[in-house]
Amino acid sequence: QCSFESLVDQRIKEALSRQEPKTISCTSVTSSGRLASCPAGMVVTGCACGYGCGSWDIRNGNTCHCQCSVMDWASARCCRMV
Amino acid sequence: QCSFESLVDQRIKEALSRQEPKTISCTSVTSSGRLASCPAGMVVTGCACGYGCGSWDIRNGNTCHCQCSVMDWASARCCRMV
Amino acid sequence: QCSFESLVDQRIKEALSRQEPKTISCTSVTSSGRLASCPAGMVVTGCACGYGCGSWDIRNGNTCHCQCSVMDWASARCCRMV
Repeated sequence: QCSFESLVDQRIKEALSRQEPKTISCTSVTSSGRLASCPAGMVVTGCACGYGCGSWDIRNGNTCHCQCSVMDWASARCCRMV
Repeated sequence: QCSFESLVDQRIKEALSRQEPKTISCTSVTSSGRLASCPAGMVVTGCACGYGCGSWDIRNGNTCHCQCSVMDWASARCCRMV
Repeated sequence: QCSFESLVDQRIKEALSRQEPKTISCTSVTSSGRLASCPAGMVVTGCACGYGCGSWDIRNGNTCHCQCSVMDWASARCCRMV
């Protein structure tokens, strides 16, 4: 292989290895009531609810909805790439 | 640095900056009964269950199993890179 | 465009297309009691608890805390990029 191409490939390889590896970062958003939403740019990975309730669903793609009849708080686990 | 290498590095830098940043995408898969599975290529990040149940475990790496004695539905929160 | 630059760009394009796409990998860490922690380098995306409890919060950014008064086990869903 002509040294030119191998030199280019070498520079590319070095640049790729210097790239910061992407990681996942998560946070919790807790609200009173039965709805808790993740901010824009974050996804909901799970939900927690008051009164020991484990029945929830996701509304509008970013909002935890706690389904149990009596509810005092909802919490969304929100994650994104950083 | 000879202009050749700096030019190569500049082209690499531009190519990397043009790369679409990867993000996380999630969806819910809900089934009747006590099992709900994520499709191939997606991972389970959390589970919801009927009857207010918050006790679950993951089977075969991709299936939510709701443990409470009486159960009517299970829901898996499924995520992947896009 | 001078063939030199298009050749460099071509080499870069090939290198980027050879890159292994990053994916998300998750596992569960289950402990007796009311706390379960993800190992370093992993994030908590959701929690499960004993006694059908769906009320949990995250402590120190990596630990599931199951809130219900009586508790026998806690499980953290832990994810990272691979």
